[in-house]
Amino acid sequence: MSNWYSQPAPADDIIISTRIRLARNLSGIPFPSRMNDEQRSELSERVKKAVLESNTPFAKSLRFIDMKDVPENEIYSMVERHIISPEFAGSSHRRSIIISDDESISIMIGEEDHIRIQVILGGLQLEKAYDIAERLDTLLGDALHFAFDSRLGYLTECPTNLGTGLRASVMLHLPMVESSGEIRALADSVGKIGFTVRGMYGEGTKATASLYQISNQITLGISEKNAIDNLKIIATQLMEKERNERGALDKLKAEDLCWRSFGILKNCRLLSSDEMMNLLSKIKLGIGMGIIDIKEPPIKLMIEGQPYMLMRKYGIMNSDERDIYRANMIRKALE
Amino acid sequence: MSNWYSQPAPADDIIISTRIRLARNLSGIPFPSRMNDEQRSELSERVKKAVLESNTPFAKSLRFIDMKDVPENEIYSMVERHIISPEFAGSSHRRSIIISDDESISIMIGEEDHIRIQVILGGLQLEKAYDIAERLDTLLGDALHFAFDSRLGYLTECPTNLGTGLRASVMLHLPMVESSGEIRALADSVGKIGFTVRGMYGEGTKATASLYQISNQITLGISEKNAIDNLKIIATQLMEKERNERGALDKLKAEDLCWRSFGILKNCRLLSSDEMMNLLSKIKLGIGMGIIDIKEPPIKLMIEGQPYMLMRKYGIMNSDERDIYRANMIRKALE
Repeated sequence: MSNWYSQPAPADDIIISTRIRLARNLSGIPFPSRMNDEQRSELSERVKKAVLESNTPFAKSLRFIDMKDVPENEIYSMVERHIISPEFAGSSHRRSIIISDDESISIMIGEEDHIRIQVILGGLQLEKAYDIAERLDTLLGDALHFAFDSRLGYLTECPTNLGTGLRASVMLHLPMVESSGEIRALADSVGKIGFTVRGMYGEGTKATASLYQISNQITLGISEKNAIDNLKIIATQLMEKERNERGALDKLKAEDLCWRSFGILKNCRLLSSDEMMNLLSKIKLGIGMGIIDIKEPPIKLMIEGQPYMLMRKYGIMNSDERDIYRANMIRKALE
Repeated sequence: MSNWYSQPAPADDIIISTRIRLARNLSGIPFPSRMNDEQRSELSERVKKAVLESNTPFAKSLRFIDMKDVPENEIYSMVERHIISPEFAGSSHRRSIIISDDESISIMIGEEDHIRIQVILGGLQLEKAYDIAERLDTLLGDALHFAFDSRLGYLTECPTNLGTGLRASVMLHLPMVESSGEIRALADSVGKIGFTVRGMYGEGTKATASLYQISNQITLGISEKNAIDNLKIIATQLMEKERNERGALDKLKAEDLCWRSFGILKNCRLLSSDEMMNLLSKIKLGIGMGIIDIKEPPIKLMIEGQPYMLMRKYGIMNSDERDIYRANMIRKALE
């Protein structure tokens, strides 16, 4: 089954993906940072049972994976595919995950919270993603007893998740907004209404390829619906802004920029991850502007060209060797 | 008939062209800077007659052109093809020229000196070029009376040409010598033995595309043969140096550099003259190293992509329009 990033999706000329994450904890056992091995195993088993033994359509497409059975390189490639968080990947504790065949659903067990439900879809699909997450939440909530306070809401390890436990985010491709120098002003203004702007690979990562993630910061005193509605408004406004700036662009200069990037990607023999990201970003812009078309979505190539994704396909190698394999992979993909 | 830059030539992986220039003046009439219109016309007629009415094989391939019949844009395209000097092109005086069909021979009449015989050939062909120049010199000398001093040699307007009146030059493509930072040291060392290093379009032009012209500066107290032999030694040494540095180059990095340049040239929609020169220089390096091959010699494309050469083919246009036509021309040439 093909991944979210391999298929066309609504508004995906500018909005790359939508992600919903719900943080949940079971009452009666300590937060993961203070759990012992036995409690970890117990947590894992309980969540596994709750999901896989339920008689829902979800169960068919979901599989349980004990992270101790997954090679380290595969684990980091899951981060690159946005299935798990870098923190989860790097943890030395017992962890497990439940994922769907298309990897759009992942339930991390034993991350910062007991349960992290994640739904990631291509394009702008906030309601749909939330709907899936909510059904998983109900399924799990029915089988398990979540730590919930009638005044505060869901209890979480970190107070920034307290309340709804919801983190909704959209990843946008904003090359023209970026080149107009408006990103800082944008970050400031969305910051004032409780949203944050980050790079492609989440917290602390700088933006490459003009990809920006916008997510809600406030989980307390706001409903899930409000958070999602507000994010949708921001994403839609930004999308319009980006479209307008693209419309005002000199067509010939845009064509030149895009075809040059294509020419380099189609011919280079060495390609770093950063350069790949930035050149594919130009191609994505070109596709969005109707200048060029390529067989596979640039976002798919961006993800498949990441270090661990490359090694997953071609075997373990060092950074210099990856630059060669990455160049070869992209060259073939553009044939 | 095809130009010197359209055909393969000896050592042309590194040595682009060989040029021989002889400065000659007729005795009994003032130097061009002090000639009146009548004297200019007379000079023109006398040289024309000497060449075209001679019964030599040369005569068949040579044609006389009065520069007043040549449109200004065509005149500047002749500079770009290295047929005439920029000074000759820019002069407001009556001038004429005798050129061969393949444009390898040109005789400027009324440049700084009465007569400037020029032979330009592809690759390293100093003896052959000098041989042709000498035959033209003999032909002209037999029919006209050259200003000659038994002690000084040929008399010229500028003392730097006094004696042999010979300027022999070779144009070399030295990307690796250049990138090793040795050009300044090279210029200093050849300067000490009476040679000078310049850019592609002669005096005062900076080097683009790693193209360097080396020519003798001394015309007094040295025989033509010595000047040419010394230049040949320098050119050969530099060629070996460049070849050695190419041999030490990381093959993959060279391939990457060369194919990227190809990719940009093959796909760009806007191309400045400078960028074209530098990218074609990388392709020429790639051809020399056996990495890539293209239908037409890079040097031909470099010349045909010059501003007046472009306008000669596609009509008068401004610089922005030329960038479009240049990109289109190169793109087609690389198909």
